[in-house]
Amino acid sequence: MNLKYIYCLFFMVVLPSILPAEDGSQLWLRYPTNRNNIQTEQKATSEQSGVTISVALKELNLHWTGQRVELRIDKKLKALKDGYEIKGNGQLITVTSAQEVGLLYGAFHLLRLQAAKANLSDINLTEKPSFDIRILNHWDNLDGTIERGYAGYSLWKWDELPNTVSPRYEEYARANASIGINATVLNNVNASPDILKGEYLNKVKTLADIFRLYGLKVYLSVNFSSPKILGGTKDADPLNPEVKQWWANKVKEIYKLIPDFGGFLIKANSEGQPGPQDYGRTHADGANMIADALKPYNGIVMWRAFVYSPSDDDRAKQAYLEFVPLDGQFHDNVIIQIKNGPIDFQPREPFNPLFGALRKTPEMIEFQITQEYLGFSNHLAYLAPLFKETLDSDTYSDGAGSTIAKLTDGTLRPAKVTAISAVANIGEDTNWCGHHFAQSNWYAFGRLAWNHQLSSEEIADEWIRMTFTDDKNFVTPVKEMMLTSRETVVDYMMPLGIHHIFAEGHHYGPQPWLSEAGRKDWTSVYYHNADNTGIGFDRTETGSNAVSQYFSPLNKIYGNIETCPENLLLWFHHVPWNYQMKNGKTLWDELCYKYDTGVKTVREYQKIWDQTEPYIDTQRFREVQSKLKIQARDAVWWKDACLLYFQTFSKQPIPYDIERPVHELDDLKKIKLDMKHHN
Amino acid sequence: MNLKYIYCLFFMVVLPSILPAEDGSQLWLRYPTNRNNIQTEQKATSEQSGVTISVALKELNLHWTGQRVELRIDKKLKALKDGYEIKGNGQLITVTSAQEVGLLYGAFHLLRLQAAKANLSDINLTEKPSFDIRILNHWDNLDGTIERGYAGYSLWKWDELPNTVSPRYEEYARANASIGINATVLNNVNASPDILKGEYLNKVKTLADIFRLYGLKVYLSVNFSSPKILGGTKDADPLNPEVKQWWANKVKEIYKLIPDFGGFLIKANSEGQPGPQDYGRTHADGANMIADALKPYNGIVMWRAFVYSPSDDDRAKQAYLEFVPLDGQFHDNVIIQIKNGPIDFQPREPFNPLFGALRKTPEMIEFQITQEYLGFSNHLAYLAPLFKETLDSDTYSDGAGSTIAKLTDGTLRPAKVTAISAVANIGEDTNWCGHHFAQSNWYAFGRLAWNHQLSSEEIADEWIRMTFTDDKNFVTPVKEMMLTSRETVVDYMMPLGIHHIFAEGHHYGPQPWLSEAGRKDWTSVYYHNADNTGIGFDRTETGSNAVSQYFSPLNKIYGNIETCPENLLLWFHHVPWNYQMKNGKTLWDELCYKYDTGVKTVREYQKIWDQTEPYIDTQRFREVQSKLKIQARDAVWWKDACLLYFQTFSKQPIPYDIERPVHELDDLKKIKLDMKHHN
Repeated sequence: MNLKYIYCLFFMVVLPSILPAEDGSQLWLRYPTNRNNIQTEQKATSEQSGVTISVALKELNLHWTGQRVELRIDKKLKALKDGYEIKGNGQLITVTSAQEVGLLYGAFHLLRLQAAKANLSDINLTEKPSFDIRILNHWDNLDGTIERGYAGYSLWKWDELPNTVSPRYEEYARANASIGINATVLNNVNASPDILKGEYLNKVKTLADIFRLYGLKVYLSVNFSSPKILGGTKDADPLNPEVKQWWANKVKEIYKLIPDFGGFLIKANSEGQPGPQDYGRTHADGANMIADALKPYNGIVMWRAFVYSPSDDDRAKQAYLEFVPLDGQFHDNVIIQIKNGPIDFQPREPFNPLFGALRKTPEMIEFQITQEYLGFSNHLAYLAPLFKETLDSDTYSDGAGSTIAKLTDGTLRPAKVTAISAVANIGEDTNWCGHHFAQSNWYAFGRLAWNHQLSSEEIADEWIRMTFTDDKNFVTPVKEMMLTSRETVVDYMMPLGIHHIFAEGHHYGPQPWLSEAGRKDWTSVYYHNADNTGIGFDRTETGSNAVSQYFSPLNKIYGNIETCPENLLLWFHHVPWNYQMKNGKTLWDELCYKYDTGVKTVREYQKIWDQTEPYIDTQRFREVQSKLKIQARDAVWWKDACLLYFQTFSKQPIPYDIERPVHELDDLKKIKLDMKHHN
Repeated sequence: MNLKYIYCLFFMVVLPSILPAEDGSQLWLRYPTNRNNIQTEQKATSEQSGVTISVALKELNLHWTGQRVELRIDKKLKALKDGYEIKGNGQLITVTSAQEVGLLYGAFHLLRLQAAKANLSDINLTEKPSFDIRILNHWDNLDGTIERGYAGYSLWKWDELPNTVSPRYEEYARANASIGINATVLNNVNASPDILKGEYLNKVKTLADIFRLYGLKVYLSVNFSSPKILGGTKDADPLNPEVKQWWANKVKEIYKLIPDFGGFLIKANSEGQPGPQDYGRTHADGANMIADALKPYNGIVMWRAFVYSPSDDDRAKQAYLEFVPLDGQFHDNVIIQIKNGPIDFQPREPFNPLFGALRKTPEMIEFQITQEYLGFSNHLAYLAPLFKETLDSDTYSDGAGSTIAKLTDGTLRPAKVTAISAVANIGEDTNWCGHHFAQSNWYAFGRLAWNHQLSSEEIADEWIRMTFTDDKNFVTPVKEMMLTSRETVVDYMMPLGIHHIFAEGHHYGPQPWLSEAGRKDWTSVYYHNADNTGIGFDRTETGSNAVSQYFSPLNKIYGNIETCPENLLLWFHHVPWNYQMKNGKTLWDELCYKYDTGVKTVREYQKIWDQTEPYIDTQRFREVQSKLKIQARDAVWWKDACLLYFQTFSKQPIPYDIERPVHELDDLKKIKLDMKHHN
């Protein structure tokens, strides 16, 4: 034995975490709990009373560790809508709002500041939400599955309701309230008519009664054929008085049960769903008929613009082509819900050209929080940068500065009601979202819906500190990882504007070779068009001319290969393999380096994450570590599949300083994942 | 269109290979063919005649493009054995040997020089082989399978023989002759008694008749119980006169068919095989009895020292313990065949301490060309450095400089006959060895058996130029890859002296967690002994004291953790995780970096290989490229499995600058490959 044998105690303390295991079920709501204070001193009080005020008081009395807080309803603050003012000093903080729920939002604001260790001795702020309706769309089916859900089965236990009430319903409402989400569509846009049966409406009422405590309004997706299927009407023609009457009756029935019911979300004449076109009517005819039924109760119709008939025209153009001619025909409680991009929630798309194009019709964004096209709940992809990219996109519809945020939040186009929506990623998994970091996307949507001027970094910072720890050794690297993560997914999945080369049906892995599917525009080759001359979808004047749907000067910018942003190059152009990119590389080489960068960056994330072990609990550390391993393997899979496949066209070597493929293209083509739904 | 569109023709010529496809069936024998010359002018002539001289003349007349060559038998050169002299000038080269086969070897020597573009205008060289018997051991079963064979089924079509004769029998003999291999054991050491049935001996005779043309002698593995099983003797006791008589008769029968039959290879009392110990006799009793039967015909017995009874003593010690007491008791046509290391063909072992310990008994090495423990025919591992490491090991048995080469080649221990053997990697695959680079190990064994002073680099250089191309853009990087390749396998499989942590049975992947098997010394934990204090097998005085089997000063060098070579550290010592290595790193960190280096280096090989595409044929390029992908994936598998498993004991992080694992230990533990034999 000699000196070399000395055990280095250092290692013994670094590895084992002394923090207790956490399962992620608390989300970002990991506040300290004042168990002693409850009985003795009420930290928070209010002279008014109300169910939601009570909820707000409970939150503060349980979790607020600072000075006394007074909650006040003040109708004079009506202009803030459900916003609030917070003012105070070291002794007393006052939260004021015109609405009860505004006080709850204010309470959560305080708790957020507390978690961020903000200086609370002199506080004076005013918050007004960017959008009136901040709504989640659940694509949950009545059989408990979730379309594009990757966090287990549905939270809604339809079989148990209304008699058995899961404690998670209230937890769900509370989590949404904590970030300002005030509305939710409970069921899939591919809607079963059954949701409108009395039996189900009773179940919905039970949820609505719970959610109401937290200011969360319930909406439903409805099937356009409901009258015919449930009511036995001859058809579902929107001009058929019998149909109108059925809707009027049904709406009345709903409002009797749920007086603050929000309205309907409708997917019609889209991907096989019924709709007014089945009867030679327009989307406006259909939307207006149902909106009219809702009108007496202040209910609204969110009518989806996600339509594309199997025509020969570029799928990216079809929503615009169908809806622009109808502009002005929609009633004032109809709002057109438009996916952020013109195709379908790809890792990157240009914004949907319909934004700004409907000058007389309210528009709202539909984002997708659930990562249908971003690695499900296996890949870490923080989506605030994606959401911001759309919100901050300048459409030029009303001149420079006509961002989508300003077009939809009422700034440029005053609307009766403004809204923003996103498809939820929530299921019955203990950690709600499948991946601990997927919680950040629920969080980020809520925060941006409240205030779209927040930066992705601010939101990530808040979320990390509340969800994990405020130790800077954790916050700094993890935030950096989050902020780059969406771009990393773009890099290893579909850089430079490539889109929709996913495996058929489930959209998890790569299948750029997909050339046969139910419809031409469900294949991958439809989108990438790789051939011996190059790759990309020519949407310029010489191609589909989708660029013409953008306002000047974007139509020119996108339409010119020299000015088109390189991250959208192959979205708008079919580009020769040896086209010279701005950095001097050929397109082929740049494509290779992008995929490689994606792989390398995920490996860097693994290094970052593994070094966080001392700072957080073991369970979440391990679970995220495990997910990152999957992501690292998947990134290599994507890179190899795409480069080996596109190489059959480029006929050029992958630059030799890049790590070589480790798969055979033929083997990758044989991978068939058995994924029908993902519970 | 603009300047950026210019197609870079450069890429168009770099990628597609203009060389015709090759399938590897020609091995390193890709000589030019003088089709026109055959009829007109005989380049090579001889005044003597003989079947093997004819073969030599045919090779030269078909493939030699230089000046005239004269082949001469000269009995005065007897001291060169089957060696030869080559002398000549620009007009005439003379090849002289005491034996016909020496002229054939000389002819191949000339063709090798031609391939190397050597200056042949003034040539004067003498070659004498290092070993008399240069023998391949085929572990081929009579049912056509090959134990530890990874290149398809057996070359020997026992069902078709003797009537149908595959052209590959002669091609096989020719390939061996081209590198000086002059002997072959046709069947598995786990021998079926059937091989000695008259029916099979007739088949063997047919092969021997073909091989004889190329100077290749046939040997057989025999089952010690053959007399009892085939001849109906009461037992197989070596002292039973009836048994002796059976062997005498059987040998006589063989020599009648095959007058130059070489002798027997015997695995006895090893891994369940029968042997003299079944009757209370010694290995010497058994070997001598059979040797006596062979003696009248100059046949020999190669008696394997690969024995280890399931005793409690360190398996690494057992061959020594069993054989050293028998030294002096073996008859002079017995030679003890000893595996290079004391365990079993691991990626790295110290030499077998039996070498030099038998002072009155001839010893020969058994190498393994087939990559049982080095990735089968999937991994590129050039084994000349492994062979050389053993041959050049100094045992100190007769003082410094007592290398295993000198102990076995007759230099230090004059022997009636010297020999060197290796388990073949040849099967019926078109390319013979499964992996194109596995051919280099057959080649290297032959070349080292002929001349153990050749360097690994010289042999690689020869082989690359003959097998692929002499373009230096290919030769230089590929040679570098080959020369480091065995160490790379060590790095990603079992660095620092770790050994035998392979998956049970098939020995392909990692299974360091293997703790239950038929015998304790078939588990992995037996060998690595990882626990919370450290890892490694204590073979010092405080442990099994296997070090005591080595001659001084090696026993001290190996026995002292400070002086033990680090590449054998865990072979000889149980070492604390935080032991400080010579580079200052802890053992744990060093282990991590070794595994990581292994992975990185395989990826570098992929880069090297991919850049060879322009220089060789497409088929072999693609096939090797594909194998390297498997190797790259497997290296990660090994690294992850070993580091994650050993980490459960070290309880230390993998250094954070190392690429992180992408697998879960639990998932890796579930991998069960269905590998019984590998055809």
